[in-house]
Amino acid sequence: LVLLVSALLVGFLSVIFTLIWVLHYREGLGWDGGALEFNWHPVLLVTGFIFIQGIAIIVYRLPWTWKCSKLLMKSIHAGLNTIAAILAIIALVAVFDYHNVRNIPNMYSLHSWVGLTAVILYFLQLVLGFLIFLLPWAPLSLRAVVMPIHVYSGLLLFATVIATSLMGLTEKLFFVLTNPAYSTFPPEGVFTNTLGLLILLFGALILWIATR
Amino acid sequence: LVLLVSALLVGFLSVIFTLIWVLHYREGLGWDGGALEFNWHPVLLVTGFIFIQGIAIIVYRLPWTWKCSKLLMKSIHAGLNTIAAILAIIALVAVFDYHNVRNIPNMYSLHSWVGLTAVILYFLQLVLGFLIFLLPWAPLSLRAVVMPIHVYSGLLLFATVIATSLMGLTEKLFFVLTNPAYSTFPPEGVFTNTLGLLILLFGALILWIATR
Ligand code: HEM
Ligand code: HEM
Ligand code: HEM
Ligand code: HEM
Ligand SMILES: O=C1O[C@H]([C@@H](O)CO)C(O)=C1O
Repeated sequence: LVLLVSALLVGFLSVIFTLIWVLHYREGLGWDGGALEFNWHPVLLVTGFIFIQGIAIIVYRLPWTWKCSKLLMKSIHAGLNTIAAILAIIALVAVFDYHNVRNIPNMYSLHSWVGLTAVILYFLQLVLGFLIFLLPWAPLSLRAVVMPIHVYSGLLLFATVIATSLMGLTEKLFFVLTNPAYSTFPPEGVFTNTLGLLILLFGALILWIATR
Repeated sequence: LVLLVSALLVGFLSVIFTLIWVLHYREGLGWDGGALEFNWHPVLLVTGFIFIQGIAIIVYRLPWTWKCSKLLMKSIHAGLNTIAAILAIIALVAVFDYHNVRNIPNMYSLHSWVGLTAVILYFLQLVLGFLIFLLPWAPLSLRAVVMPIHVYSGLLLFATVIATSLMGLTEKLFFVLTNPAYSTFPPEGVFTNTLGLLILLFGALILWIATR
């Protein structure tokens, strides 16, 4: 229980830090084809793809779900993962649109290659999850065979998304922290490094809870 | 067995790609306080901290160790992890020395914060491993309690090191690929993005093998 509460707290703090970052240190949020629109990218990914996905993964371990039926639990798990997927898509639309308006090429960075792969495999995981574990027609034997793969690929995707977000933060900080430079320890750099550590800690807590 | 061979192959390929990268696209290797010295940083980390650590993690699963005694297996596991730790330290000396010669501040980036934390915790894991699992005095009950923590923290550190290397690659590519820019898909960028995907695939294979 202490673990669950700390995970929720650290995850919540990561979302708050991301919001403070874009609203206080960056330009804020908007849908203008410029920096305001780009800023939805980190906000939606940390909120949706990291925080909500993390909760979806441990939802079977939350005490208040123990009194729910298995079907209800599965629906919550599937529903949260669906919300996370939708927010991730909007986050990608934001950054592609920003790149197109500014005539910046798409999909050149390692961050974008790993990130897009993760989003596509996440959708595959979601569709397979629905087909095999929610719809009633899959035989139990199929479910039993697929379950270890589902758990492994779910946790691997979650870890990959965390790694992607750390790459994205790194890129963005080197882009925008030029004067004063990132290397001179400006408050924004220290603040955002702390955000990176929080995201990593959230990931570590979720993985610990999910593997107990 | 197919999995083991693929993991070894992908890991080996990652090391080769790193060497091709620094020898062909970058300046090569040397200990001159300049770029040649920096280049030891990625080479030693991909070779030692990623490849050797990965092998150390799955050493208990290799068929040729099944005929060895448990003590011999533990010694190989501990020995490989010790080599990985030493290579990581030399890699850190290389980059700190490079920064000092060039008057670049140390420890400002998220990459360096996560990386140094991982190296320190790795040493802790190593020392605790020796004390609890190799020296004969620890009671079996203590070993049984610590083992799940040892496995979790070992796998988490491995994943964190992979994430750190992807951040490091990202940084380096934005530093050096200015003309032509990283965003114009120069061969070095595409080659090194592929290296990043190989490292990630190696990590995924090791984690799959270690959790079967
Ligand atoms: C967590 C999951 C994330 C995923 C799946 C992801 C995915 C992507 C993708 C696919 C692109 C390419 C867009 C294009 O080429 O038009 C991109 C770009 C970018 N992302 Fe993310 N991102 C994530 C998190 C973040 C975070 C937290 C940041 C922090 C600010 C960030 C910063 C950037 C930046 C600066 C770019 C533009 C440069 C580039 O193309 O690499 N990303 N992201
Ligand atoms: C991309 C979306 C998804 C991801 C990342 C994901 C990930 C995971 C993970 C990591 C676990 C292990 C949780 C634990 O051990 O506590 C899990 C369990 C499970 N998931 Fe998913 N999942 C996804 C979608 C779905 C969908 C759509 C369904 C359909 C209902 C589903 C059904 C299940 C079931 C039945 C379990 C086993 C729960 C148990 O331990 O009894 N998943 N999932
Ligand atoms: C895999 C484990 C890795 C660890 C633990 C690690 C650790 C570190 C540390 C602690 C620093 C700070 C040095 C200082 O401030 O003087 C650093 C710097 C650096 N590393 Fe790594 N590194 C890793 C992998 C890589 C890789 C694969 C690259 C790819 C080229 C890389 C590129 C860099 C760069 C460019 C710097 C200088 C900029 C900065 O301080 O962030 N690193 N690394
Ligand atoms: C930083 C160094 C270390 C790391 C990252 C590490 C990591 C790991 C990991 C991930 C596993 C699980 C492997 C699997 O399930 O196949 C493991 C198992 C184990 N480790 Fe370590 N380890 C380290 C150091 C040590 C040391 C110094 C010892 C002392 C001998 C040790 C003893 C063991 C033992 C006895 C097992 C259980 C093997 C079994 O499944 O029977 N480890 N280690
Ligand atoms: O939640 C479930 O767990 C089982 C099975 O996959 C476990 O092996 C199953 O069929 C579900 O729908």
